[in-house]
Amino acid sequence: METKHTISVLVENEFGVLARIAGLFSSKGYNIDSLSVSETADPTLSRMTILTHGSDQIIEQIIKQLNKLVNVIKVEDLTKEKHFTQEMILVKLKAGSKSEIQTQAEKLGAKILEAGSKAIVLRVVGDEDEIAHALDVLSSFGILELVRTGTIAIQRGEQTLLESTQKSS
Amino acid sequence: METKHTISVLVENEFGVLARIAGLFSSKGYNIDSLSVSETADPTLSRMTILTHGSDQIIEQIIKQLNKLVNVIKVEDLTKEKHFTQEMILVKLKAGSKSEIQTQAEKLGAKILEAGSKAIVLRVVGDEDEIAHALDVLSSFGILELVRTGTIAIQRGEQTLLESTQKSS
Repeated sequence: METKHTISVLVENEFGVLARIAGLFSSKGYNIDSLSVSETADPTLSRMTILTHGSDQIIEQIIKQLNKLVNVIKVEDLTKEKHFTQEMILVKLKAGSKSEIQTQAEKLGAKILEAGSKAIVLRVVGDEDEIAHALDVLSSFGILELVRTGTIAIQRGEQTLLESTQKSS
Repeated sequence: METKHTISVLVENEFGVLARIAGLFSSKGYNIDSLSVSETADPTLSRMTILTHGSDQIIEQIIKQLNKLVNVIKVEDLTKEKHFTQEMILVKLKAGSKSEIQTQAEKLGAKILEAGSKAIVLRVVGDEDEIAHALDVLSSFGILELVRTGTIAIQRGEQTLLESTQKSS
């Protein structure tokens, strides 16, 4: 059975790390549903969140192969841990019924970045269900454009990725 | 002079696109400060936001080279257009002075996802200045872990990436 997995990867901030990781997924035919990478609090390290799906066997292979790559410090399948996943989206809507959009935005906890005469730009944040619900509600107004960050994830409690028990090879 | 640029790339949702793009940046020595990629409202297309920095000449080269890649539909340097940039971060803090963290979180418009006995997890969203300010404020509490989406961007007004005047080759 294919299931969704959220994989966090801590890497050294060196040229070519993203290319090697993306190349691994591409050459092996592993799925990337979303990916985001940015610096951590330590500027020598970057952190990647990869949303993927596959059988347990495939996910195990992905973790194993990622651990073998140069400059990869830590890999963890956060799906196996207690964690939060969150996403941000920017949505541009047709500015048809502005007051109705405002009402819905308030209900969704969305922020209106711009309310022009022809288009309204909203920012929505939340977990997978909240984002799916927001897109469902907003699509009725006509989505002109959608930009997503993809999922990012963090473990609950005091544990951090670096201190996790899952070992990097 | 080196300046920051936010580049949006619309691509066909095919295997290997991310690997080719990351490989281009790596092989040419172009910087990637952050990158996020996810599906658009049309599931056959993905959209990437790349934050990079470099001289005008380098940025021009990046745009030109990206336009040459297979499965790349549209490339645009949003820095040249009126646009919004937004980022989301998840921050895990030491749970020292919980009430003070709550006060600061409220000021920052941050959401407390978890307030445990040892760690507090916050979600903050905003533009570059707001995120920098939040990190500045929160770092005094002791940041245990930081996960960033990287910047995503959307044009102001009704214009969309697909309809932009900048031509794909």
